[in-house]
Amino acid sequence: MILSADLLDRQLTAIFTAWGMRPDQIADTVRVMLYADLSGIDSHGVSMMPAYHRIRAEGKLTMAAVVRVVRQTPVTALVDAGGGLGHAAGVFAMNLAVERCAGLGIAAVGVRNSNHYGAAGFYARMAAERGFIGIATTSSWKASIVPTFGSKPMFGTNPIAFAAPAGRNPPFVMDFATSTAAIGKFTLAHRAGKKIPEGWALGADGNPTTDPKVGLDLRLLTPLGGTREQGSHKGYGLAAMVDILSATLNGGSFAATREERYGKEARFNIGHFFLALNPAMFREDGEFIAEMDHMIDALRAVKPAEPGQPVLVHGDPEETARQERMTKGIPVADSLVEELREIARACNAPDLIGGRSRTGSA
Amino acid sequence: MILSADLLDRQLTAIFTAWGMRPDQIADTVRVMLYADLSGIDSHGVSMMPAYHRIRAEGKLTMAAVVRVVRQTPVTALVDAGGGLGHAAGVFAMNLAVERCAGLGIAAVGVRNSNHYGAAGFYARMAAERGFIGIATTSSWKASIVPTFGSKPMFGTNPIAFAAPAGRNPPFVMDFATSTAAIGKFTLAHRAGKKIPEGWALGADGNPTTDPKVGLDLRLLTPLGGTREQGSHKGYGLAAMVDILSATLNGGSFAATREERYGKEARFNIGHFFLALNPAMFREDGEFIAEMDHMIDALRAVKPAEPGQPVLVHGDPEETARQERMTKGIPVADSLVEELREIARACNAPDLIGGRSRTGSA
Repeated sequence: MILSADLLDRQLTAIFTAWGMRPDQIADTVRVMLYADLSGIDSHGVSMMPAYHRIRAEGKLTMAAVVRVVRQTPVTALVDAGGGLGHAAGVFAMNLAVERCAGLGIAAVGVRNSNHYGAAGFYARMAAERGFIGIATTSSWKASIVPTFGSKPMFGTNPIAFAAPAGRNPPFVMDFATSTAAIGKFTLAHRAGKKIPEGWALGADGNPTTDPKVGLDLRLLTPLGGTREQGSHKGYGLAAMVDILSATLNGGSFAATREERYGKEARFNIGHFFLALNPAMFREDGEFIAEMDHMIDALRAVKPAEPGQPVLVHGDPEETARQERMTKGIPVADSLVEELREIARACNAPDLIGGRSRTGSA
Repeated sequence: MILSADLLDRQLTAIFTAWGMRPDQIADTVRVMLYADLSGIDSHGVSMMPAYHRIRAEGKLTMAAVVRVVRQTPVTALVDAGGGLGHAAGVFAMNLAVERCAGLGIAAVGVRNSNHYGAAGFYARMAAERGFIGIATTSSWKASIVPTFGSKPMFGTNPIAFAAPAGRNPPFVMDFATSTAAIGKFTLAHRAGKKIPEGWALGADGNPTTDPKVGLDLRLLTPLGGTREQGSHKGYGLAAMVDILSATLNGGSFAATREERYGKEARFNIGHFFLALNPAMFREDGEFIAEMDHMIDALRAVKPAEPGQPVLVHGDPEETARQERMTKGIPVADSLVEELREIARACNAPDLIGGRSRTGSA
């Protein structure tokens, strides 16, 4: 089913309102979620609603969360997300980092006591849209990455996002899980009844599996690199770095031992990390974005290995998706549409999707 | 041949003195180089001397370099390395970052007009040894990484290093090239007459090669991840991120287009980036290192997939190598020993290795 961003916006707003989220946080949360859907990052937008619904039902999510600064210096801050979803806390924290980096050149803001915050790239891009370099990382609620030579998952898929502004080009934005593939890709493959490529996850016998359900159930994902010989210690190192910056630094939980330390009922206590850096403190006016354009242009000019398959430039696939989905709408799997309607019914929010479906309007 | 760190120290000092390097910079340079050899990072220590010798002969290296701060704020600085080797400038810049992060919580220092600086992990570790989180990245003198779907190299092997202090454990230190394998591994395999694993580099026909010489000559290295399906866009994105932080931000050259823009005789103008972050601005005293110990202990406790092959913990292999090589000495390939002696003779420095070899003393 193809749904407009506007309809999804109203449907999500209705659900979050019924859940008791504060209005200012609803606006931020929906904006971050729809950024993912519009950008083709289908694993991190509305497809997360069933998971949010579930953890709310389990009592692990505070809807009327208070986001506040608990420690700070002129260029750092520690933010407590109050146990709510991470999106609004993330927007608040990256805005703080951006404001503070403007004057002194660099700032870092950590967040603790949070939850899933959607696509990390949104936050890194916030900095780039203001002319700054942005970095955003987050820990995860569940350990999924098996460290090199190990037999059990010890880190979440711990994504890292980096963005830098350009001039005539859109900003350079990269955003990826430090596992070979993001867990959301497993969910999407499972929902679509597709296999996953060999090398993403292991089965119970320790051999690679192509069944996304096995990947989701066992959570034995390979770190980026796949095997030791092909550099899995690097992906595993990145996953650890993200955990240290996002959780260890800010007082978030280490997911692999959370239940063992704090019990099955414990909150996820996810942590995030945001950094903003002002190129104006390093280069003369305009030099940085001119060099960014030079690099991006040079990448676009590389002859493709296969004709018709141009060199991937980070940020381009998302930009292309946005242009298309803003006008044509967002494809949403039928099973997910049903889940969203069910979630709306369960909290007595209006079912706007069903309404649209019955009248056939876009 | 096994050589003591002390002998290598004296031999390198003698050569750098003959080359006209300033004494304070010699001490830093040799310390950083021997850190690599003692830590088992054989690709980044004395094995780089032939390359340094060559670029000096080509007039691309300033030996009496002046390292100076050209711009600064209380938490950022831009350092000009004066066209010298990068080691001393790197030590200077990371010291600046460390001093400045102590008070306000975070600091970043960029370096331009530099050259190869050895193992990035040395600088990240400098921060960890003072109780801070450290990040160090550097651009490279030659493009080697082929972007996803592309046909020619556009980024150097652009390494990234990250270190964090622990309590009863040694610091967590990761340091790796953003290609599947570091270029130094190709050189070592070539010197040892060994093949490289399939997946590290492509041959002229676009298919994988196992010949390290082909990898070194053509420089068609895969980004970490190897193929698109296994996440090569992630390794390529990291390589770009490192280039942006190290070169674009600080006025270093974009290696892929340097000759085309500035001519074959142009200096490499390598850039570095250093960041230091003070956990004391985020957590209560001792909490951060206690959590680091918890994470490291949990990783060590993971059951290995293969008995006898424990889970890799970043920093451990280097620590083990150091313990062994401090007492037993550093293995140096015979061909490299001959090259070092030749380099000493060429600049009229004493040949201390040959002298040792003739008397048979350690």
